[in-house]
Amino acid sequence: MSELVHFLAHALELESRAGERYGRLARHMEGLGKPEVAALFGRMGEFSFRHAGEIRRLALPQGPLPRLSSWQFDWPDPEPPEVGDLARTHADMTVEEALDFAIANERSGRDYYLRMALSAADARTRRMAAGFAGEESEHVQILERWLETITPPS
Amino acid sequence: MSELVHFLAHALELESRAGERYGRLARHMEGLGKPEVAALFGRMGEFSFRHAGEIRRLALPQGPLPRLSSWQFDWPDPEPPEVGDLARTHADMTVEEALDFAIANERSGRDYYLRMALSAADARTRRMAAGFAGEESEHVQILERWLETITPPS
Repeated sequence: MSELVHFLAHALELESRAGERYGRLARHMEGLGKPEVAALFGRMGEFSFRHAGEIRRLALPQGPLPRLSSWQFDWPDPEPPEVGDLARTHADMTVEEALDFAIANERSGRDYYLRMALSAADARTRRMAAGFAGEESEHVQILERWLETITPPS
Repeated sequence: MSELVHFLAHALELESRAGERYGRLARHMEGLGKPEVAALFGRMGEFSFRHAGEIRRLALPQGPLPRLSSWQFDWPDPEPPEVGDLARTHADMTVEEALDFAIANERSGRDYYLRMALSAADARTRRMAAGFAGEESEHVQILERWLETITPPS
């Protein structure tokens, strides 16, 4: 398996799992009558879903991506970075806590891509990973600005 | 519950359930080594996810949407229109069959919104439903054009 294909399989798993998780959190928060938190998670799910679509299009010329089982992925945890630790979510989450949670997820996605951008041997993989890291950085920035607008200056 | 709120709760359920289903189908088709079919389902999932986000934003001024249980929704089937009948999917699906499946789903979403656009008593609900029907129509058209490009003329 080429390094590029290996990377794309990881990126696709990361984004689609993150999208699913955010989607489920959004629906859950709606059920709890917290539309602002639901809207935030829905927005993050949109980002991840869109990114997964982009990765699928980039991967098409490579043919089918390899089927990896959960233990074959390179990340140390059973779940990909960016999926977020469910232990950090709870029914009484404020928008601020939801933003903190999402910022941590997007940062860990960005850091994964940055590591790949630095460590991959293949130049195309490095370039792609750097691009993906840039997108995650943008998400972090959007969320940080959002957090600033709702946090009163101390 | 106002007619508008009732409608938004239905539309959000429809779009988020359709998005989840398409996402799961995309991942499944990837696992089966069918990247083109996966890409198609992923694209449809993006549409539904984006639409769910739009509905959440439209619903925010109305406060939390009501929590409806599955049997409280107006559609005759246990699942919302546009989610698609899983019996029509199978492991050996061609891109053409996946397109047929997606077209049927998007049509049933469009028809649901059209019925609401015609039958709602509240003018804003009618207007919004007509807008949503328009979006689903666009998806149907995109898919039909896609199907034409891969179907040899008879």
